[in-house]
Amino acid sequence: MATMSLTIAVDLGGTHIRVASYNSESITPVAHFRTRTNAREPGVFDRLVQAIENVWDAKATSIGVASPGPLDPYTGTILATPNIPEWQNFPLASKLSEHFGVPVHIDNDANMAGFGEWTFGAGKGHHNLVYLTISTGVGGGVICNDTLLQGFHGLGAELGHMIVDPNGPPCGCGKNGHVEAFSSGTAIARYANEQIQTGQKTSLPSQGQLTAKQLADAALQGDTLAISAFSRAGHYLGIAVANYLAIFDPSIVIFGGGVSQVGDLLFKPFEESLREHTFHPHYLDDLVIAKAALGDDVGLLGALAWARYKRTRAE
Amino acid sequence: MATMSLTIAVDLGGTHIRVASYNSESITPVAHFRTRTNAREPGVFDRLVQAIENVWDAKATSIGVASPGPLDPYTGTILATPNIPEWQNFPLASKLSEHFGVPVHIDNDANMAGFGEWTFGAGKGHHNLVYLTISTGVGGGVICNDTLLQGFHGLGAELGHMIVDPNGPPCGCGKNGHVEAFSSGTAIARYANEQIQTGQKTSLPSQGQLTAKQLADAALQGDTLAISAFSRAGHYLGIAVANYLAIFDPSIVIFGGGVSQVGDLLFKPFEESLREHTFHPHYLDDLVIAKAALGDDVGLLGALAWARYKRTRAE
Repeated sequence: MATMSLTIAVDLGGTHIRVASYNSESITPVAHFRTRTNAREPGVFDRLVQAIENVWDAKATSIGVASPGPLDPYTGTILATPNIPEWQNFPLASKLSEHFGVPVHIDNDANMAGFGEWTFGAGKGHHNLVYLTISTGVGGGVICNDTLLQGFHGLGAELGHMIVDPNGPPCGCGKNGHVEAFSSGTAIARYANEQIQTGQKTSLPSQGQLTAKQLADAALQGDTLAISAFSRAGHYLGIAVANYLAIFDPSIVIFGGGVSQVGDLLFKPFEESLREHTFHPHYLDDLVIAKAALGDDVGLLGALAWARYKRTRAE
Repeated sequence: MATMSLTIAVDLGGTHIRVASYNSESITPVAHFRTRTNAREPGVFDRLVQAIENVWDAKATSIGVASPGPLDPYTGTILATPNIPEWQNFPLASKLSEHFGVPVHIDNDANMAGFGEWTFGAGKGHHNLVYLTISTGVGGGVICNDTLLQGFHGLGAELGHMIVDPNGPPCGCGKNGHVEAFSSGTAIARYANEQIQTGQKTSLPSQGQLTAKQLADAALQGDTLAISAFSRAGHYLGIAVANYLAIFDPSIVIFGGGVSQVGDLLFKPFEESLREHTFHPHYLDDLVIAKAALGDDVGLLGALAWARYKRTRAE
């Protein structure tokens, strides 16, 4: 008879902390709780502990956490994260483990999302998988030979920070020409803003910060400038994915994140660029390009999958 | 008592076929044989069979082959290889296996070299390794979580064909802006030739094909043009390796291949560029940058290591 055990999953986001508890085998939560992170205010750790206590159960045997990075998954330390200024070299896993008395397994949100899609979502059954989340930034998670790519310092699979043009625009991280600097929601909006400033004709407002949503709406109404902003993002995304194919030769590339919801606006130019830039057509044979399947639960389910995986390996 | 078993290793190069036999545990060959490939003349397969027969022993239990690619390591088929025009979708592994009656394991030369360096050479004990060979082309081999990165079609780790500048020069493969098109021996010589044609002052001959050796000699004599050709190659190599760090976060990067022998001419500008372009300084903490340790035997020893590894996994 299998031992009944309960796993706690945590999705620590910039806006919300979500926690849920799951019985073994199930991906339907026994209990679920959500609260605001208030990431820039003191006390994030206390809010996190309280959130977990809301779903805590004496049968819980481990906690999985999807957290913003950069972090060290081997020690469970958050190195620094722009969203939560009070956490600098913050030993999140050991503090949670001390409080709850169970092992705590953490990794960054994109790695956990990739691992979640591989375990429960669009990537089930694949052995080599590339997951890309396109939202304010571009994040990556990679499965290589049926294992999560973490790397020596736990900083692997930072796919958004691959240089695709050394003369490209600055990235949020301060370096230049990363795919995130071309294809993230932030980059698309910035490019559109710059084009407006050069006097290009558009239905978009010339004042204030544009959002990816506004741009998508304008593009769907036929606004040429908005269309070209997505087209450029898709073009560079195609270059980046051509590189990931040559590097990883995955059987599936999965797209998650808000910006990936815009559909053809981004993905038509992406696919054209991918075909143009892929080093050898054989990479595209039977390659699956898929949308993420787990929606907003991807962080929770990734953390759940990871905690279960680590427990199995520890046994 | 361990069963005595003998492994045959084959390094199938554009110029030479090398074969050797090894007793279990040892990396000193029992027998070694070398012959010319005459790759463009018919009969390569027959020459290969004869070469193996020269070192064959009834105790042999498997054959490992390092071959030029692209190839499918799962079926053992050479898809096409520019050096050996008669091999198109050539089922090398099954033909050898049929002839010799033992399992045959093949992969491309760069993957086998990386695997060899990991098993016996500069990369021993590392769990995440990037191997780069810089010669007429740029090839890659990657160990990720203690396994060889091969990918879905067996075309993974084609690190030389990563786009580092979409507006860059053409690569030997026909696409543009790959790191191979900037940093291979061929690319360095072509760039120098182009600069000579623009009338730049140099001690180099203005007629005929330059070799990397000529360029290195001229650079060591202080020739500005030759120095700048290596400097440019090192600069783009630094961009490429910065990308591999963000992608794989290895604990070691190993350089092999003839061009990597030039030393500081290439590696000073490389290191400067790597520091400039690495996304986060933490990737460089305790990162080892090493020269390949196995020299000319890297193909044989990689094929040996791979055949032994596959046998262990099959048992």
